[in-house]
Amino acid sequence: MLLSALLMSVGINSCLCVLFFILYSVLRKQPHNYEVFLPRRLADGTSKRRRNKVARYIPSVKWIWKSWRPSEKELMESSGLDGVVFMRMITFSLKVFLFAGIIGVFVLLPVNCFGDQLTVIDYADWSANSLDLFSVANLKIRSQWLWVHFGAIYLVTAFVCCLLYFEFRYIALKRIEHFYSSKPQPEQFTILVRNIPSTDGSSVSDTVDRFFGENHFSTYLSHVVIHRTSKLRSVVDKAKKLYKQVKHKKPVKKKPMRFFSRRDTPEGHYENVLQEMEQNIRLGQAEVSAPGKEVRAAFVSFKSRYGAATALHMPQSINPTYWLTEPAPEPHDVHWPFFSASFMQKWLAKILVVFACLLLTILFLVPVVLVQGLTNLPALEFMFPFLTLILSMKVVSQIITGYLPSLILQTSLKVVPPIMEFLSSIQGHICHSDIQKSACNKVIWFTIWNVFFATVFSGSAFYKLSVILDPKEIPVKLAVAVPAQASFFIAYVVTTGWTDTLTELFRVVPFMVSYIKRSFEPSDDNEFVVPPMRYHRDTPRVLFFGLLGITYFFLAPLILPFILLYFCLAYIIYRNQVCMTHIFYSFRFSPCRLSTQLRFGMQFMNVYAPKFDTGGMFWPMIHYTMIFSLVLMQAIAIGLFALKKMELATYLLVPLPVCTLLFNEFCRKRFMPIFTAYPAEVLTKRDKEDRNDPRMPEFYNNLVSAYQDPALLPLRFSGSGSRNDSLTSPLLSSSEV
Amino acid sequence: MLLSALLMSVGINSCLCVLFFILYSVLRKQPHNYEVFLPRRLADGTSKRRRNKVARYIPSVKWIWKSWRPSEKELMESSGLDGVVFMRMITFSLKVFLFAGIIGVFVLLPVNCFGDQLTVIDYADWSANSLDLFSVANLKIRSQWLWVHFGAIYLVTAFVCCLLYFEFRYIALKRIEHFYSSKPQPEQFTILVRNIPSTDGSSVSDTVDRFFGENHFSTYLSHVVIHRTSKLRSVVDKAKKLYKQVKHKKPVKKKPMRFFSRRDTPEGHYENVLQEMEQNIRLGQAEVSAPGKEVRAAFVSFKSRYGAATALHMPQSINPTYWLTEPAPEPHDVHWPFFSASFMQKWLAKILVVFACLLLTILFLVPVVLVQGLTNLPALEFMFPFLTLILSMKVVSQIITGYLPSLILQTSLKVVPPIMEFLSSIQGHICHSDIQKSACNKVIWFTIWNVFFATVFSGSAFYKLSVILDPKEIPVKLAVAVPAQASFFIAYVVTTGWTDTLTELFRVVPFMVSYIKRSFEPSDDNEFVVPPMRYHRDTPRVLFFGLLGITYFFLAPLILPFILLYFCLAYIIYRNQVCMTHIFYSFRFSPCRLSTQLRFGMQFMNVYAPKFDTGGMFWPMIHYTMIFSLVLMQAIAIGLFALKKMELATYLLVPLPVCTLLFNEFCRKRFMPIFTAYPAEVLTKRDKEDRNDPRMPEFYNNLVSAYQDPALLPLRFSGSGSRNDSLTSPLLSSSEV
Repeated sequence: MLLSALLMSVGINSCLCVLFFILYSVLRKQPHNYEVFLPRRLADGTSKRRRNKVARYIPSVKWIWKSWRPSEKELMESSGLDGVVFMRMITFSLKVFLFAGIIGVFVLLPVNCFGDQLTVIDYADWSANSLDLFSVANLKIRSQWLWVHFGAIYLVTAFVCCLLYFEFRYIALKRIEHFYSSKPQPEQFTILVRNIPSTDGSSVSDTVDRFFGENHFSTYLSHVVIHRTSKLRSVVDKAKKLYKQVKHKKPVKKKPMRFFSRRDTPEGHYENVLQEMEQNIRLGQAEVSAPGKEVRAAFVSFKSRYGAATALHMPQSINPTYWLTEPAPEPHDVHWPFFSASFMQKWLAKILVVFACLLLTILFLVPVVLVQGLTNLPALEFMFPFLTLILSMKVVSQIITGYLPSLILQTSLKVVPPIMEFLSSIQGHICHSDIQKSACNKVIWFTIWNVFFATVFSGSAFYKLSVILDPKEIPVKLAVAVPAQASFFIAYVVTTGWTDTLTELFRVVPFMVSYIKRSFEPSDDNEFVVPPMRYHRDTPRVLFFGLLGITYFFLAPLILPFILLYFCLAYIIYRNQVCMTHIFYSFRFSPCRLSTQLRFGMQFMNVYAPKFDTGGMFWPMIHYTMIFSLVLMQAIAIGLFALKKMELATYLLVPLPVCTLLFNEFCRKRFMPIFTAYPAEVLTKRDKEDRNDPRMPEFYNNLVSAYQDPALLPLRFSGSGSRNDSLTSPLLSSSEV
Repeated sequence: MLLSALLMSVGINSCLCVLFFILYSVLRKQPHNYEVFLPRRLADGTSKRRRNKVARYIPSVKWIWKSWRPSEKELMESSGLDGVVFMRMITFSLKVFLFAGIIGVFVLLPVNCFGDQLTVIDYADWSANSLDLFSVANLKIRSQWLWVHFGAIYLVTAFVCCLLYFEFRYIALKRIEHFYSSKPQPEQFTILVRNIPSTDGSSVSDTVDRFFGENHFSTYLSHVVIHRTSKLRSVVDKAKKLYKQVKHKKPVKKKPMRFFSRRDTPEGHYENVLQEMEQNIRLGQAEVSAPGKEVRAAFVSFKSRYGAATALHMPQSINPTYWLTEPAPEPHDVHWPFFSASFMQKWLAKILVVFACLLLTILFLVPVVLVQGLTNLPALEFMFPFLTLILSMKVVSQIITGYLPSLILQTSLKVVPPIMEFLSSIQGHICHSDIQKSACNKVIWFTIWNVFFATVFSGSAFYKLSVILDPKEIPVKLAVAVPAQASFFIAYVVTTGWTDTLTELFRVVPFMVSYIKRSFEPSDDNEFVVPPMRYHRDTPRVLFFGLLGITYFFLAPLILPFILLYFCLAYIIYRNQVCMTHIFYSFRFSPCRLSTQLRFGMQFMNVYAPKFDTGGMFWPMIHYTMIFSLVLMQAIAIGLFALKKMELATYLLVPLPVCTLLFNEFCRKRFMPIFTAYPAEVLTKRDKEDRNDPRMPEFYNNLVSAYQDPALLPLRFSGSGSRNDSLTSPLLSSSEV
């Protein structure tokens, strides 16, 4: 790639950045955009104060300062440990690339520049390959300067490993701390039991009662058997939707209705329909609750956390395929539709999902190959001869080679996270957080395979497979292919990376949707949903730039400043989106906090609300991806040193991946158990604290019904209480947040 | 191999068999051989009744009938579940090879014989390859008769898998049953805790007490901290040995002593030495027990089995590398020297053991290559020209090709189990049973690799490695190499298999040792040890013949009758050696049983006493080896069908190994949990039964000191009480059994 093409790309993107920042500063102050930029503000309904008309149109940067300010403790309160983990992933990357950036820009870049491999080529040709001048390709074979790279690789590996260790320890401790400071939660006292064996003449409920009453008699409290409610749930959902529409319309009866041509029907009609539905639902609930209609699974609650953990860890039955235990998710996190599936269905679904993922991975190569074709101007001219004139214009050709390819790639990548989430949801996970974790994992490996490897080995899928099947040759093949794509990935960071974060800030799609909606139906400000943070979409994206930075830091150090800038942007923007949601969140449940927060001058300006709290379960995934990046970088280095005929350096590099993997194994042993289960020490301490708590009897009372299927809760649509449904089913409101 | 050579081999071995049977029948009736053939009889000292002089010299076969008779329940009582598992391995093999034998001999053998591949060769040559006539090599390429083999492979696989499933289930149920029927045992109430963190100012004992008192307060009972006693133990052992010698000599003071030239020293001298040693030991015990000298590990006992299991399964500490729990072994099964090693030492020892195993595997190829050379007469004549005359004799050449090779191989294999046991003992296992299990596993894979693969691929070690590194080619390479060695392995079964079991019956080495000893020192009948069953020596041997039978059943069905005969011999002989030890065993502890057993006419005629009871933990190993044999056989079949150009059959065989592995996975999921830990259901049932047992307080009292290091128990050598040491240390006697 030409240096000018890169500069063009940087120019375009910098302009876009500034434009988006200004636009955001202005638009977020407009009350009718609160729905997009400050959805929580509308949620509580207190925030319709209008600003000074002029101030509303003057761009300001105060919000940057404000998003910078909150401490980690405040972040924890607002977004839970998952938010903290997400932000720490970005700060971790910032630290890594600050260190690698200093080494790269001030040591490796000059060394590469003063190499003499490419000076033998004349100026015209030199200019064509200008970006290669800054890369390791500029060093001659057996050049002694390569030892500088060798040292840098060891240094950066050591630095990243140290940092990884301390981060893992920090998050693990935070997890324990978070557990200590949490109020008693139903999921801490409950386990999910599956494959309950059928005994003649007694219901599932009786079987569970007898089994736990016998085998865990000192700690067993109660249980909730799960029922097949998929059909009932769809009816309930439909009824609720209708009820909400009717309810919201009631106070403005005079206004003409626009939905469902309701203008022509009398108000009473809906009341009748709702009452009929209520009757149907009540009948359906009775039918589903009848014995014999149960799923052979139950949530079993215990008197103490220690008791629940005992039952969780211990094998239960003589037949190890019965009475399978697993930790219960948060009550509002349960993925109810899953329970309706039989064991066979689940198993088939799992196999199908694996095949679907493979299919997606293979089909996705089509846009990637297209992108590869677009970067090649002659190929484009050959395919579309009528474009020759336009393509001969310098600006157009530079836009096409420098900007368009990664834009197309990025757009097609956008559809992957929702697809992966859907695939994970039918895979057999019992809660939304597990679905997101699984989807996140899928998206990470999909991105690494389809963006990194597909670009690097831009041949057919079969060629890629043949690379994998010949493990000895991988490093050398990587060392040939990876540096050749350096300029593409620099452009990728500038275009995809920068614009990605900015569209995240600006929320382009929701903004446009809201704009279009508003222009058709001017005032309906109760009709919006506070979006949850989609970790499976954002985590892989950030991690992929980390992978790019680590693999290219010694090959093409020029990438480092751009990566660093990307992480700075991501830091500010994600803090702005994630950080202070807690004001709304906590306000919703404990209004007293609002004033405290307002005293600090914080504003209602955030987007995402945490939907669940996995307690930092995303960190191990981040850790493993970082380790993979390191090993990949080391494999490329080994291949490169072999190509440059530095035998000694090649052999001296071989222990590095081995040590990195051993380090990973150590971390896994040292920290992973904390992420799979809480230790006895912690559980008994919390139990002891609770023993004298006067609120515990009430908690136990609620615990008995905490895991009630929302489709089986009594609903009452008749009558006109405005928060009627949430009064009769207290869990619904939180599950819908 | 010539048919005549095989017949010669069969002839020699049949004669040897008859000879050994007669010799055994006679020799076992001689009182001075009781020590070798009936060691337990001497152990209780009641059995010196002399028979009629003539009857003693008449061979009888009554003992065969007697070893046939005991039921499995009696076997269980006498040798524990491990003995049952061992015998079931043999009956399992018998069933498999009865089924495979019927198919092989009555279906495959005729099909092979009527093949016409080898009839084109003239008679002289035909005779040279006569054994090949019965093998699958006699069938032409694309012969439709191969479909018979195809069917046989599917049939036998299905039969073996079904049998494996039912056996695994049976053993798993037996294990549970065994647990239900056992008296309360210390190991059921105890766990081993390692890596206890050091806290300032408090001893390990205090730390353990505080930790379990806090975190498992409802079930925690007591603990025993482990001390570094390696040095002390060697002194104690020396003293005990000396004491035993002195004690046994005392009643025959008049007789001149022969050991250690004791004849010239006064009796009182030993008393003084012993007293001095006792003093030293007491000082040493005090020194070792001092605080600060502890190992950071302890046996922690609980009030119930459920409590112990809770602590075992639950993660204990915020730092997952501390407070590591594992099930406690039986008290007399503990491998005390191991605890003295530090964590680093253990880790290094483990790495060293891995390297030592690899080294042993590579060095062992030397005798195998030698054996291969010996089967080749021309090579031998070339190397040792002076032997030409002898080698030209038909009998000699037949002995050399038919008998000698496998004899040499077998002799060099004899040294492997003790070496493997030694290696396992320094690997970090905390009990003898784990050491034996680990050694057993090592010996299995060593035998398969060094006998099977080394013989099949009789090239260099590098060639063998290259086969492994090219996974696609393995089946075809196997299909070429394995059938070529059919005649060698038939001879191997006849020679090694048959003589192996007979030397086991006859106990050649102990018999000779005892004979030599007796001729030097005529009467010292108290000086003997009852040998424990060495599962790590015998299990791999039996399993290897199973592997040979399964892999060759369709290649050379002629092997099957010999294998079947081997298993019949093994069944009778091992039952004879293992079966009825319980009379002595139980007599030792409950004399009342003796009369009951005598009523059934059983005699004191057995060899081995169980040293520990793993509760059938050897079965999974047997199961996995069987699965490996099946998959190996299927891989060879796939290769063979590919070589015979039967494309359809080849493709139809591919699902078979996949299904076998899936079946294995299912069995692992279904049964393995029962072998790793007892389920809550079982534990609470047993706990409930004990709750009203009046003997429990006494059991708890004993439990507190059950895991006391024997080197730290008070010893008293002075005084002349004949069972003095076993009175003051009640566990010593059982640990020495």
